[in-house]
Amino acid sequence: MVKIVIVNGSPHENGATSKLARVAARGVEDAGGKVEEVRLYSYRINPCMGCVSEDVKKCYFPCPAYNDDFNYVAKKLIDSDGFILATPVYWYAPSGVLKNFIDRLTSLENMIFHVGRSLLDGKVAGFIAVGADSGVMTALSYMVIVMNSMGVLIPPWAIAYTHSVDPLEDEQAVRDAYNVGLNVVRATLLARRGSGVWYKPDVPIDYLRSVYITQQAR
Amino acid sequence: MVKIVIVNGSPHENGATSKLARVAARGVEDAGGKVEEVRLYSYRINPCMGCVSEDVKKCYFPCPAYNDDFNYVAKKLIDSDGFILATPVYWYAPSGVLKNFIDRLTSLENMIFHVGRSLLDGKVAGFIAVGADSGVMTALSYMVIVMNSMGVLIPPWAIAYTHSVDPLEDEQAVRDAYNVGLNVVRATLLARRGSGVWYKPDVPIDYLRSVYITQQAR
Amino acid sequence: MVKIVIVNGSPHENGATSKLARVAARGVEDAGGKVEEVRLYSYRINPCMGCVSEDVKKCYFPCPAYNDDFNYVAKKLIDSDGFILATPVYWYAPSGVLKNFIDRLTSLENMIFHVGRSLLDGKVAGFIAVGADSGVMTALSYMVIVMNSMGVLIPPWAIAYTHSVDPLEDEQAVRDAYNVGLNVVRATLLARRGSGVWYKPDVPIDYLRSVYITQQAR
Amino acid sequence: MVKIVIVNGSPHENGATSKLARVAARGVEDAGGKVEEVRLYSYRINPCMGCVSEDVKKCYFPCPAYNDDFNYVAKKLIDSDGFILATPVYWYAPSGVLKNFIDRLTSLENMIFHVGRSLLDGKVAGFIAVGADSGVMTALSYMVIVMNSMGVLIPPWAIAYTHSVDPLEDEQAVRDAYNVGLNVVRATLLARRGSGVWYKPDVPIDYLRSVYITQQAR
Repeated sequence: MVKIVIVNGSPHENGATSKLARVAARGVEDAGGKVEEVRLYSYRINPCMGCVSEDVKKCYFPCPAYNDDFNYVAKKLIDSDGFILATPVYWYAPSGVLKNFIDRLTSLENMIFHVGRSLLDGKVAGFIAVGADSGVMTALSYMVIVMNSMGVLIPPWAIAYTHSVDPLEDEQAVRDAYNVGLNVVRATLLARRGSGVWYKPDVPIDYLRSVYITQQAR
Repeated sequence: MVKIVIVNGSPHENGATSKLARVAARGVEDAGGKVEEVRLYSYRINPCMGCVSEDVKKCYFPCPAYNDDFNYVAKKLIDSDGFILATPVYWYAPSGVLKNFIDRLTSLENMIFHVGRSLLDGKVAGFIAVGADSGVMTALSYMVIVMNSMGVLIPPWAIAYTHSVDPLEDEQAVRDAYNVGLNVVRATLLARRGSGVWYKPDVPIDYLRSVYITQQAR
Repeated sequence: MVKIVIVNGSPHENGATSKLARVAARGVEDAGGKVEEVRLYSYRINPCMGCVSEDVKKCYFPCPAYNDDFNYVAKKLIDSDGFILATPVYWYAPSGVLKNFIDRLTSLENMIFHVGRSLLDGKVAGFIAVGADSGVMTALSYMVIVMNSMGVLIPPWAIAYTHSVDPLEDEQAVRDAYNVGLNVVRATLLARRGSGVWYKPDVPIDYLRSVYITQQAR
Repeated sequence: MVKIVIVNGSPHENGATSKLARVAARGVEDAGGKVEEVRLYSYRINPCMGCVSEDVKKCYFPCPAYNDDFNYVAKKLIDSDGFILATPVYWYAPSGVLKNFIDRLTSLENMIFHVGRSLLDGKVAGFIAVGADSGVMTALSYMVIVMNSMGVLIPPWAIAYTHSVDPLEDEQAVRDAYNVGLNVVRATLLARRGSGVWYKPDVPIDYLRSVYITQQAR
């Protein structure tokens, strides 16, 4: 069973973000996956204390900075195959709650310095952003690049968005959200056939540096 | 055989961008792939005429706007399994040559309105950006979101970058570039086991719109 | 007297962000201004509840959503001539604390629907971002566009940044931070000679729409 | 007389970008300024050769890389008080023509290494972006941060945008475009009362570095 977590960064339980998130959830289900939705506004997620800038070893999962709900929610991502970040667009970016959550995910990514791999390495993610005004693409490109930087695979057509107050009126948005759900599951099924960690850290650096010289000599 | 095209947007044949591109090329080869490098500065790529904003049907591949080198280069992407966009960072973004090339790729993506699919649907891509000053992440996030919007799969750890004048001095950059090469091939091999187009356009819209109501009723 | 508030989004009292912020503060003082530094981590700033998406009239200053420290801190901006946002770069963006603060500033900007003007209209701002890795420009461009969207004037050379762990080693960053401080004051002194609100909302729309036709007829 | 150049990056002479540009032009005129529109598609602007990355002294104005139309157009900016960049949104960014133009403006900014100041230092700019789909804010934030990095002053409310095919239907966009025109002139009139170059490069670095220690000692 493919397990996908929807991380919802909206304060409105039945708002536009949540509507598109549910369409994506149906996409997940229709592709054979199982969905769990997490509403970040229902949890206490404190801001990141930036321990990693003091000492890279001080940042690890479970995040030791606070005894709040972050580790509980983040554990759901670790136990999943993938996730969908769904957010209203607040000033051309994810909501502050989701930003705090993303900042804290450093504790998962930074495990590369503790166990040799990001705890999100090879997960699959999709993205939904909703904003009546402009800025959805700014928010989406932000979430995509950050997740990829943590080792996440981004399937084709991984984003859905709308400027409509009622996203169900926006046929393209509805179709895109559904495809986000489908493709997160499809990509997960493919990724499972791969083996091991995606980031290969142990190639001799002399070998890598020699590449350029070798190729010049050709 | 996995075929990967490196699209190089630098005017300097042996500059920093080209160095990292060659490390990525070695990653491709070590994973069993074959590389072809295309240097955009060696071709004439005119600016997009924006035909699609006049009539969505006027934009298709091969791009009818000019008789320049775009179609020749773009055909290489179509015939490949994936590609790596490598660029110097000019004012926090890909070089203007690469931007013109990206703009013209609309003719591949827009085939969704002619043959039902983007000609880049399911391709795999990686990204390299080099800039002595800041702005590499702006350039990378830009390229990633655009390619995903054309239907491209982004593997884990798909980006490499450096601020160093000599990127070979930047061990992290060298390792990352190599992993970009490896992972583009690894993801291609997995993606090949999938079937068909990633974007599913033909789901009845009434079904999709009913999702929200159904779920509320639960 | 020109009053400039430095809004510091770093958890580290003597970290890299704070160092550059102090250099900027000296620039403010050398230009004849007075600085007050606000450390957001010392206050409780809850996440925005997005009231504005329910009803544009529900969002106003002082923000009625919570009885936390936001209004106290935001009042300092209102009482100032300008401000400098200084932040560590957490995943290519301002820290989550600062993002929450920015989201809540909607209550100042949205006063345009209550009193006809954004409470930040005509304020002057500068920006500092510090990150050992890449992403400072992503963070800076984000803060700049959001502040301008709230009606803030951005002086020439309004940004400073570094990738160095110790920013004082980065001569360009130190010079830039000092100039941010100078120019926020210089621009304030000029802006004071202007009169009234910068956004003129009451021009007859028919007049504006006729412009295009008129010009075509020429 | 305040002279404002509108740099139009659209291929369509009477398209949506041009319509909003004309509304902004009227704003300029109503504030007492004079407008000249430059259509980049009417000129030959070759891609930047990145000379600056070989040797910072090799890049200066007039740009020696080509004998194309760049220097002619750029001279108009130098002779102006300010300018408005107006562009269609091609893949969430300015059109490739405008990107090439921006890349080449390095030759103006880089005069800091030849004559001690950017040739755009203290100019005033506004921005217009038009795209039927999303991405206008990505394009705008990009243009704003780049221009500020070249020393340009950004007045309050300096951006206008629309997602509408016919921007004249979008009342907010029309009002915003008009205000862009007004405010570029208003800010110019204020900026003229200032004196000298905005970037002050010659402060002793020891003084700047001592700031942090001094402040700690307080």
